[in-house]
Amino acid sequence: MNITNFLNFEPVGKRIEDIETPVPLIDIDVVDRNLKRWQARCDQLGIANRPHIKTHKLVGLARYQLALGAKGITVQKLGEAEVMADAGITDMLLTFNIVGRRKLERLAALARRTQISVVADSADVVAGLAEAGKNAGRKIVVLVECDTGAHRNGVQSPQAAVDLAQIIDKTPGLAYGGLMTYAGAGQRLQAESFFMEARELCLAAGLATGIITSGGSPDMWKDEGLSQLTEYRAGTYIYFDRSLAERGTCAYSDCAVQVLATVVSRPTSERALIDAGTKSLTSDLLGLQGYGTAHDLGDAQVYAANEEHGYLDTSHLARKPAIGELVKITPNHVCPVINLFDRVVFVRGDEVLGAVRVDARGLVA
Amino acid sequence: MNITNFLNFEPVGKRIEDIETPVPLIDIDVVDRNLKRWQARCDQLGIANRPHIKTHKLVGLARYQLALGAKGITVQKLGEAEVMADAGITDMLLTFNIVGRRKLERLAALARRTQISVVADSADVVAGLAEAGKNAGRKIVVLVECDTGAHRNGVQSPQAAVDLAQIIDKTPGLAYGGLMTYAGAGQRLQAESFFMEARELCLAAGLATGIITSGGSPDMWKDEGLSQLTEYRAGTYIYFDRSLAERGTCAYSDCAVQVLATVVSRPTSERALIDAGTKSLTSDLLGLQGYGTAHDLGDAQVYAANEEHGYLDTSHLARKPAIGELVKITPNHVCPVINLFDRVVFVRGDEVLGAVRVDARGLVA
Repeated sequence: MNITNFLNFEPVGKRIEDIETPVPLIDIDVVDRNLKRWQARCDQLGIANRPHIKTHKLVGLARYQLALGAKGITVQKLGEAEVMADAGITDMLLTFNIVGRRKLERLAALARRTQISVVADSADVVAGLAEAGKNAGRKIVVLVECDTGAHRNGVQSPQAAVDLAQIIDKTPGLAYGGLMTYAGAGQRLQAESFFMEARELCLAAGLATGIITSGGSPDMWKDEGLSQLTEYRAGTYIYFDRSLAERGTCAYSDCAVQVLATVVSRPTSERALIDAGTKSLTSDLLGLQGYGTAHDLGDAQVYAANEEHGYLDTSHLARKPAIGELVKITPNHVCPVINLFDRVVFVRGDEVLGAVRVDARGLVA
Repeated sequence: MNITNFLNFEPVGKRIEDIETPVPLIDIDVVDRNLKRWQARCDQLGIANRPHIKTHKLVGLARYQLALGAKGITVQKLGEAEVMADAGITDMLLTFNIVGRRKLERLAALARRTQISVVADSADVVAGLAEAGKNAGRKIVVLVECDTGAHRNGVQSPQAAVDLAQIIDKTPGLAYGGLMTYAGAGQRLQAESFFMEARELCLAAGLATGIITSGGSPDMWKDEGLSQLTEYRAGTYIYFDRSLAERGTCAYSDCAVQVLATVVSRPTSERALIDAGTKSLTSDLLGLQGYGTAHDLGDAQVYAANEEHGYLDTSHLARKPAIGELVKITPNHVCPVINLFDRVVFVRGDEVLGAVRVDARGLVA
């Protein structure tokens, strides 16, 4: 089983110098290593791996994740689910409340042809899902989303979780599947006690909690707070990025994606302008200084960015980059970067393998 | 001449409630008013209007801007220029250094079929452009980009500008066309004196400076520092956005674009979650608090955002929005928002006119 067999490469030139910028370069060996390392850890923990495909949006890599042992995939919107279903992937969890008539029609259509589970955190959401379940002609499995400290979506207490689980259980067209959370950094123990209590309350109410699923790459290697989990949803672990390297979740050598850019201007010795701005790197800072780092170039930082301009700090460099020189920027947050590109380029070190179309790129809903 | 005749509407439902979210809603009457008001001002000032199409990326609106009196358009990358050239638009200025063999080939191909001017801020860039000019079979007009205070691209002094103008003038395949800057807020007077000096130095060197062009929407209504300009490049003025409303460049009623989103969760009375996060609103803050404002909903602010989640502060609202309720978010910075969507929806007040494909959406180079 070879990762390259899972991708359809389009010719894009043999050398990195042949590639038009800006574009994400993805080192396939780093991807392969990241995927295998995490799958091995999940196997060792006895926790199912359900990778979030929002990071890569590539059918080929989703298939490879499954081939390596992932139980299924996680998607964040119907568009992603539809693309993956078209590719024959049948086991997916959509971790976002589906609300609104058209979206519920799309969900019903998906449920007719694939095994899609969803989440809910209120009776209103459940009522909508019931319509989809009725139209799908089979029960849709619904997990209760729990707010275990992230202060985003989710029921606010274990008691609220069991209350909603009972509503789901009693709703024709739906089946109660379990509990779901997104645990931010440092929230794992809080989530564990929430889940423990909710699971026991469900049991007392006669409801078995089959799945308990948590997500998030930042704490993926931590051993605490895993006792309740049957599944883990990591997304960014396939590529990693500057934010996770700076947190210590990975090394910079684990970052598979670098945005290839060209130096287009060097107005002073203090700065160089590159052709990757916020329309390539995004404005996501995630608490960091700057919009990315050029490791091969003395850790020069993209200290400012406009839509199409990245400002590279060259003040400390003995050798300043020349006009036309290529630079590789490790982005702060890789997920929204990939979302901006129709195609990415896979490499193995300095060898160019080819461009790959981003199947679920930029689907807004 | 009616703006609606310039757009190809696809059916998307009759009522706003029929539209799937998230999607930008664009009020066509506000667009029309914004375009006419600015064109009238340029006419009154005797300055050519060369709107930047990076904001809307729509062939139809570019044509309408030209029909209203714009001299030509501004583009920021070859992909945008190619889409506009395909639509028959022939007069364009590309305000970004074109560097690299493939990009110069594309520039030559464009120059063979359209009237495209470009910029340069170094002899290295000019040397590349000379190749394109040679391959185009006709002279490409090159403007000297000047750094007049924005500390981005550009030659650093009027003397450097004339030095580069002379290099361009002596280069086969190229013609010196004039001077270009992007003037940030409050930099207009600085730019004026830079241009005055550079123009005189050019004249003394025997070079006529035909075009002096400045850009930027923030100071568009200010009367100072305009004496040297023959052209103005505004982009955001077509739609405006929260950042320009907060600066006082426009009123909130001039903001033509609102991102339509759905309330999907209301975990507490303090917050509601909407289905528009940074993959719809971007992470551009431009110095503001939050990722956008819901004016129709008591100025509730999107106080945080993840990729697909927007966190709406509902703590101060007497009536909390219900699950499934639609909200309209005025985005901080409209240009990168439009870049994220394949389609936008035009409305007239509450009347839905239809969806329009974003012709030059998300072209990365």
